[in-house]
Amino acid sequence: MTSSDSSGEKWTSAEEEIMRATYRALLSHGYANLSMSRIAEELDKSKAAPYYYYDSKDELLVSFLDYSVDQFEETIDTRESDDPKETLDRVIEKLLPLQPDETEQQLQTVLVELRAQAVTNGAFREQFTRLDEKIVTAIHEIIQQGIDDGVFRDVDSTRVAEHILATITGTRYCHATTNRETAIAVTRVSLSSYIDSELRKRP
Amino acid sequence: MTSSDSSGEKWTSAEEEIMRATYRALLSHGYANLSMSRIAEELDKSKAAPYYYYDSKDELLVSFLDYSVDQFEETIDTRESDDPKETLDRVIEKLLPLQPDETEQQLQTVLVELRAQAVTNGAFREQFTRLDEKIVTAIHEIIQQGIDDGVFRDVDSTRVAEHILATITGTRYCHATTNRETAIAVTRVSLSSYIDSELRKRP
Repeated sequence: MTSSDSSGEKWTSAEEEIMRATYRALLSHGYANLSMSRIAEELDKSKAAPYYYYDSKDELLVSFLDYSVDQFEETIDTRESDDPKETLDRVIEKLLPLQPDETEQQLQTVLVELRAQAVTNGAFREQFTRLDEKIVTAIHEIIQQGIDDGVFRDVDSTRVAEHILATITGTRYCHATTNRETAIAVTRVSLSSYIDSELRKRP
Repeated sequence: MTSSDSSGEKWTSAEEEIMRATYRALLSHGYANLSMSRIAEELDKSKAAPYYYYDSKDELLVSFLDYSVDQFEETIDTRESDDPKETLDRVIEKLLPLQPDETEQQLQTVLVELRAQAVTNGAFREQFTRLDEKIVTAIHEIIQQGIDDGVFRDVDSTRVAEHILATITGTRYCHATTNRETAIAVTRVSLSSYIDSELRKRP
């Protein structure tokens, strides 16, 4: 797969179609039961088959992760609001929805299966490294903005951002791999309390 | 596998031998490349083969998780010290060693692979639910002891315990699946700061 087309965009429309088909196939079948032919089934018959572009399911999935991290960066627009506290709350609600719908739950499940590949597969590992870096950077920038604006305390914003990433990732992971249904709600409360005690200015 | 032998112990010595062999085989080969014959290779030739006791690799691994949770409960003895803060620090160092040695790193790696099975396998899921419950209960009891002794603030000990579990689990998971080597050290600092700000009594 080329990393840019003639227009300078990273993803061609053909590649984007394959990525969307991969997403649908992953949600339907999970990682273990995913195959190139199942991804092809999700594609318009007139389009080139995924094996025209990719040699293997794992090669395709590394591109899928690359694409997803790019998409994630676009959706997590941290400049939308002027209120850093509001922006931070919105990012946390996006990363750890209090009441995840079925698609979000399936997505979390698939991400745990994909992330387990990162233990032994360096290309997967690089993509999850990139994803975590993007999340920490986004949270770090919001906190730094709040400090610069004088609405947050002057804390070590990297430390707080890493703490928020670890807590959110751990909660999602535990939720996807245990029957402890109430854990998300409890952690959301504890995370609010953490953010409040770390960032809120005291009179 | 019977859950108790004639002496009333949950694990017979034959079962324990198989569990220790499974542990060694998991560290050497990982989950994906583990097989009944590789576990048998780790066992004394005079012992009964694991397939005498278990029908499949996954059935054996569910027993292995069950055994590991029992072992974990024994090692995480929360009554060892009179100082709740010291006990809490010791449990955190055990769950999230600041400088994990090679065996601990391999174990974390294997646990990520095993935990990914919990997404689709109910028996694995039950064992990881049990593990997380044990950890939260242990931390909760230490905090409650500190509150009762008057050395910790009167916080919602369940909320703080869940937060610590989520942060530790997330950090271990990120460490095993990314190249972000410094994340553990940063989270250990942030966790100390969290515990201090939640639990330390203010004059």
